[in-house]
Amino acid sequence: MKEGELILLEDKKGKKYLFTLKKGGVFAFHKGKILHDEILKKRAGQTIVSSKGEELLILKPTLRDFVLKKLKRISQIIYPKDVGQILVLADIFEGAKVLEAGTGSGALTLYLIRAVGEKGKVISIDEREDMVENAKKNIEEFYQKRIEEIKSLTLKRQNLAEIEEKDFDRVILDLPDPWNYLKKVKEVLKEGGILACWLPTILQVFELTEKVEKEFSKDFVLEGIFETLQREWQKRKIALRPKDRMVAHTGFLIIFRKLKS
Amino acid sequence: MKEGELILLEDKKGKKYLFTLKKGGVFAFHKGKILHDEILKKRAGQTIVSSKGEELLILKPTLRDFVLKKLKRISQIIYPKDVGQILVLADIFEGAKVLEAGTGSGALTLYLIRAVGEKGKVISIDEREDMVENAKKNIEEFYQKRIEEIKSLTLKRQNLAEIEEKDFDRVILDLPDPWNYLKKVKEVLKEGGILACWLPTILQVFELTEKVEKEFSKDFVLEGIFETLQREWQKRKIALRPKDRMVAHTGFLIIFRKLKS
Amino acid sequence: MKEGELILLEDKKGKKYLFTLKKGGVFAFHKGKILHDEILKKRAGQTIVSSKGEELLILKPTLRDFVLKKLKRISQIIYPKDVGQILVLADIFEGAKVLEAGTGSGALTLYLIRAVGEKGKVISIDEREDMVENAKKNIEEFYQKRIEEIKSLTLKRQNLAEIEEKDFDRVILDLPDPWNYLKKVKEVLKEGGILACWLPTILQVFELTEKVEKEFSKDFVLEGIFETLQREWQKRKIALRPKDRMVAHTGFLIIFRKLKS
Amino acid sequence: MKEGELILLEDKKGKKYLFTLKKGGVFAFHKGKILHDEILKKRAGQTIVSSKGEELLILKPTLRDFVLKKLKRISQIIYPKDVGQILVLADIFEGAKVLEAGTGSGALTLYLIRAVGEKGKVISIDEREDMVENAKKNIEEFYQKRIEEIKSLTLKRQNLAEIEEKDFDRVILDLPDPWNYLKKVKEVLKEGGILACWLPTILQVFELTEKVEKEFSKDFVLEGIFETLQREWQKRKIALRPKDRMVAHTGFLIIFRKLKS
Repeated sequence: MKEGELILLEDKKGKKYLFTLKKGGVFAFHKGKILHDEILKKRAGQTIVSSKGEELLILKPTLRDFVLKKLKRISQIIYPKDVGQILVLADIFEGAKVLEAGTGSGALTLYLIRAVGEKGKVISIDEREDMVENAKKNIEEFYQKRIEEIKSLTLKRQNLAEIEEKDFDRVILDLPDPWNYLKKVKEVLKEGGILACWLPTILQVFELTEKVEKEFSKDFVLEGIFETLQREWQKRKIALRPKDRMVAHTGFLIIFRKLKS
Repeated sequence: MKEGELILLEDKKGKKYLFTLKKGGVFAFHKGKILHDEILKKRAGQTIVSSKGEELLILKPTLRDFVLKKLKRISQIIYPKDVGQILVLADIFEGAKVLEAGTGSGALTLYLIRAVGEKGKVISIDEREDMVENAKKNIEEFYQKRIEEIKSLTLKRQNLAEIEEKDFDRVILDLPDPWNYLKKVKEVLKEGGILACWLPTILQVFELTEKVEKEFSKDFVLEGIFETLQREWQKRKIALRPKDRMVAHTGFLIIFRKLKS
Repeated sequence: MKEGELILLEDKKGKKYLFTLKKGGVFAFHKGKILHDEILKKRAGQTIVSSKGEELLILKPTLRDFVLKKLKRISQIIYPKDVGQILVLADIFEGAKVLEAGTGSGALTLYLIRAVGEKGKVISIDEREDMVENAKKNIEEFYQKRIEEIKSLTLKRQNLAEIEEKDFDRVILDLPDPWNYLKKVKEVLKEGGILACWLPTILQVFELTEKVEKEFSKDFVLEGIFETLQREWQKRKIALRPKDRMVAHTGFLIIFRKLKS
Repeated sequence: MKEGELILLEDKKGKKYLFTLKKGGVFAFHKGKILHDEILKKRAGQTIVSSKGEELLILKPTLRDFVLKKLKRISQIIYPKDVGQILVLADIFEGAKVLEAGTGSGALTLYLIRAVGEKGKVISIDEREDMVENAKKNIEEFYQKRIEEIKSLTLKRQNLAEIEEKDFDRVILDLPDPWNYLKKVKEVLKEGGILACWLPTILQVFELTEKVEKEFSKDFVLEGIFETLQREWQKRKIALRPKDRMVAHTGFLIIFRKLKS
């Protein structure tokens, strides 16, 4: 492990602690303390023992760990289970040019950067300055570098109506009123490109799909409306069963294809 | 559109037809014929009319379209909805070195190639020669190039026990008996790396997790057992509702982290 | 087994055949014939062999078997899985006085008769004569008696607006536009009584709950909006797993309590 | 409302309070106090105001309200959503003779009493004296009478192996090891009768179904293995969406038919 790296400690019950390693730093929790300098001597996959004798596993966090445990949220995020569906249903490919509006806390942005790769381009906009600032911090923390160094990303405060870039392969809208931006999306999305909208309530889904049917039927074709349920199982000796509770709802994913202008 | 490209035609009911464009070729279906040469004059997002007057939308297929509609299956595939979860839960990142055993029909392989990008490496093995041959054809068809040209991929007939490459960031097993390969995975997976196993039945999940608990508890820690349900909605004017039927089960995804050797 | 009784034959794959026993009758299917007279000599739980050597199990059908296999449908029915929820969420009790509008094919009616028992009362109405006639036949077939002999039931052609009976403990509406009958339900449902509405699409749920909020907030309080998913598992030797496909949607159940007039 | 009756008070957020009315009694909660004597002057469906000005709705509790809010649990109960499935899949009918082992806290017992009606018979046994005592109190509290007065019920401390009654129409086992009682069930269940087993973990399901296949294939035929998911929706003005979280698992319901002895 190196200074400045994100580190994940996991106890025997699967509880996770995520932080950045600093020389001289101290990690304190209800089971004692651990000196960062001690962690710096170790490697991923090894264990370390706290001052109160608790053994913890040292790991590099996955992006999912980071999003769920460390990302600072000032808005509802798109959860990893839903990101998985977006990557596949919006067909995010290496080298793609993707527009994301709005950025929110940057959870999906982080996955998009990864999915398009160095050859791709993610332009992520949010009309709220505080959102952009917060997302910037989250992204810089995950990548351990300044945002300017992430060449494939442009993050900026902007309303979707003001965007000037064009020819996007994919457009992803995490906005409360995507129906107000269909005209703009029509201009900036390539023919045959994919528009993916994320909406938490069902009347929004209706309003969006109705608007497309009535006013943009020559511009977009509905590919599908999806929701995803993830169920986790647990094992205690021979007692193998689904966990008692689960997330019942996050949002609906609506996929359109752009027709020729 | 260009000769040799994969093309997707979609009718007004959302029915999709996927094939490769060839000069002089003819696409025939129950609503008439369309000359490939006519399609070659068009662009994605445009429409074309068949000899019987049916209007079809011309699109470039997504990888999901290809997997669901064109990929030749000689085995049960991992479905796109589950691929989405694997990408996120196994944390497949740009530049990762990933081992996949077995290849099957190559559906997941195609997504892994995309996810690790040009900087990454996918080694995909299957002990059945026919599987490897079929997957090769599927991958070549999607990429429209010879498999040797896909530098990030190595596809070969091999039993997991025989593999010599090491230091994988992630190992994904789509095998009926992953518990028989834990020793091998322990050798080839990096410390802190992720092992993802895909299993269709619940007793397999039990056997795998039990084996890890009893014989490999110092080598692997269970991160979770997951299943994913995707529900699609439909809209007919104001009648917005989930579709009548859905896929109830494909498989269970079991995620482990490798501890230090 | 007795003449005139409903009988269920089940083959080794679980396929079910349901009919009424008649002296001299013949049951013919793709695996041969069976004489009703031979079945009449048997008892439930025994087996019988067809002319082509297929062994079938003889059973008395459950009400669920009858509803799924024999009930003649001239409308979408409420499925047994949903009936189970209605019985519990609408709190149908022995001795209750229940109004059902509309009857449809009588699937729920049959369960309501059973749930209120001989001391209870079910008044089931439908404005379509053909529905009433068909439901009558279905109910008579299940009970093997004339509908007049089922004292706890009144089945009639009537629009809900015309109903004169009052003081119902529970009202169950399987109508496309329940919001148009809230005034009437308010008059005929006891204070503290339960109104249960069954609706297939989500905009109907919105229209109903919105109407109650805006115009009947002093008359009804919303107790909940529910949907139920039933997943079936299969076992083939050690391969225990959920079945591949399932019913993804039937309808939404909306429960209200009546406030004092 | 009458003294000795169960009463349900519901606040504007849907929070419920359930208790028995007593002359001179006082109901105290975080929003003030309410005198039982004041409630006794009211009717169901009316409202009452607490000493701190909170308006509460007065209702008679449903059996579901009682089970979820008041029933004293000294064991895991079978939830109303699952009771609904048991009533339908085990085909509990008016007049049926039903054996329940074990009673637990009596949640299912209360529903069975209701479902078989006065003409039916429920024999409910549990080998633990404390379970029987607690269930007795719960049932007496719901019915507001001594258990001896509920003629259709026999509740007693007994191990299933010791039961002497026979000719049950239905047998319901909520035991950790139903496979140990198959021989006994075979003796006491009528030919063609239904055996329903409730099991929380999947290996229990396997052990039970495997045992029947291997040792009791001439006595029982498997009708199905079911699990039920109930999803609740919420409405806040136009924001209509499923609730965030839900119960992901309670148990598996396994249904068998008894063959001739």
